[in-house]
Amino acid sequence: MERIAIIGLGLLGGSLGLALRQSGLRDVEIAGTARTRGTLQTAKRIGAIDVDAPTPAVAVRDARLVIIASPIMAIPEIFDDIAPQLVEGAVVTDVASTKAQVMRWATERLPEHADFVGGHPMAGKETAGIGAADAELFREKPWVVAPSVRASDAAVRTVVGLAQSVGAKPMFMDPDEHDSYAAAISHLPLVLASALFSVVAGSNAWPEMAGLASSGFKDTTRLASGSPEMAHDIMRTNRDNVLHWLDRFAGELQRFRETIAGADDAELLELFARQQVERDNYITSGPPSRMEKPEVERVSLSDMLVGGIVSSYMKRHEERLREMESRERDRR
Amino acid sequence: MERIAIIGLGLLGGSLGLALRQSGLRDVEIAGTARTRGTLQTAKRIGAIDVDAPTPAVAVRDARLVIIASPIMAIPEIFDDIAPQLVEGAVVTDVASTKAQVMRWATERLPEHADFVGGHPMAGKETAGIGAADAELFREKPWVVAPSVRASDAAVRTVVGLAQSVGAKPMFMDPDEHDSYAAAISHLPLVLASALFSVVAGSNAWPEMAGLASSGFKDTTRLASGSPEMAHDIMRTNRDNVLHWLDRFAGELQRFRETIAGADDAELLELFARQQVERDNYITSGPPSRMEKPEVERVSLSDMLVGGIVSSYMKRHEERLREMESRERDRR
Repeated sequence: MERIAIIGLGLLGGSLGLALRQSGLRDVEIAGTARTRGTLQTAKRIGAIDVDAPTPAVAVRDARLVIIASPIMAIPEIFDDIAPQLVEGAVVTDVASTKAQVMRWATERLPEHADFVGGHPMAGKETAGIGAADAELFREKPWVVAPSVRASDAAVRTVVGLAQSVGAKPMFMDPDEHDSYAAAISHLPLVLASALFSVVAGSNAWPEMAGLASSGFKDTTRLASGSPEMAHDIMRTNRDNVLHWLDRFAGELQRFRETIAGADDAELLELFARQQVERDNYITSGPPSRMEKPEVERVSLSDMLVGGIVSSYMKRHEERLREMESRERDRR
Repeated sequence: MERIAIIGLGLLGGSLGLALRQSGLRDVEIAGTARTRGTLQTAKRIGAIDVDAPTPAVAVRDARLVIIASPIMAIPEIFDDIAPQLVEGAVVTDVASTKAQVMRWATERLPEHADFVGGHPMAGKETAGIGAADAELFREKPWVVAPSVRASDAAVRTVVGLAQSVGAKPMFMDPDEHDSYAAAISHLPLVLASALFSVVAGSNAWPEMAGLASSGFKDTTRLASGSPEMAHDIMRTNRDNVLHWLDRFAGELQRFRETIAGADDAELLELFARQQVERDNYITSGPPSRMEKPEVERVSLSDMLVGGIVSSYMKRHEERLREMESRERDRR
């Protein structure tokens, strides 16, 4: 029986537990922990976890794979809590919305005998919490895999296997690269949705306008209903990238304003026509072709949990053998 | 057999035809016309219209109710085309996204013996054209009814009946009021969606970012896939309101930027928390309570098409009788 630990059982942690259960993993138990007793009980009742642990340190005991699904700002303390408990070759991953800061914390705070591989499933809903957990949340969604420089191949393959076992599409990416892209396609939209809702709902005429608002307003502001804690943590750990994209957006909006205020009808039509054509291409044909990286090979998470730990031991064992041989040589 | 004419058979006109057919109107034929022969043939084939007319002038012959579902900027010419053909007491309505300019055109260009009642169903999709027509498009959606000052009660009730017969919820509103509200909840989101898509897809890293983008980016930019012609016409006929809201939004975005750049964590959390709470209230409980106007009484469109025309004649007949009596008195 191998153990997977999930630290944090909100929308992502809870959905992961359900999805892992549904993926039919053999001989695996899922231990989980949450900040509140109610969440922990719910997670166990709906089958997202098998074992309810009182603390992160207890949850990760003997775990081969540890998934941190807490708010970002809680991660450093969790790393400190679990560090003394991590077994040799344990794989630690996360699902946080930003990756560079989490990677720095992992390097500083996790022991060398554990392998950190950052992760970010590009999946979410505006409703947070275990109550919104959904085994299908990750289906066909990109899942960014950002290994630390010292992570073993087996650890990387374990996290790839995790993503694949819940139906997601793993994509390798550098943490800084991830954060600059996520600022544009995820964090900027979040700020715009929230600012749009704020300025419209803050108007005196909001009660009248609310009755008129339909799916366009609702979709464009959807991200404003996401977790405020997550928004806060994203802005705090990806501030410079977000500010960069806010400024680029403000410049673009000014360009739109000038064309709307101006007299050139053809230019105005062209402005909207270009976005329509390009967005339609994107939606119907997917990302532009130079994105089409080779498919990530399929990995069995079950095999990795057993085999991965063995190959991880072997790699370290071989390193130790080489070190002994080298010391042997030096002594001669 | 009464006739309803639909001028323009895109998403809205086509959906209206299908929805009217499905509503089980008795003894009514739907005549339609479109800019292209292909659209007209498709509309007839899918049952959105019974009679395909080559021009607006032919479509409105003997029609009791005329629905203009063309692009906004095509409306003045259509009004000119149909004006000589409109029967006494014909009710003319539209489904355009802006109302004040359309009302001015109606006042200038439609004959006094026809009654104009502006309309705007708050329903749409990002896919335009008859191919996207959907009989359920208007179900439970607000439908703004903006009568001209000289419209008869019967004409107003006919348009209310039209909205209700396709499942929409009619709401009375002044054209200027409509346009200022629509600028905030519909036209501003459209510009933001398009500017967001433009700045992100215009980036060098777009091919990589596109592979990472998920439902958040797609939902926030959805409106950018709408008809460019519609966007153009909205900006041209509601420019001042749109510019007003663009400026208010730019100010709000600056406020968000300062809080994100600043050091006050509580303020940052509060910024997102407020929008989350208020949007959730709005989504779950509907518009704030002072919006709850009394329900609009149910009206049968079939009865209005027959009865409305009678009451409209009667009203004018009574007016003429009174005028004759008054002239009679003056002569004495």
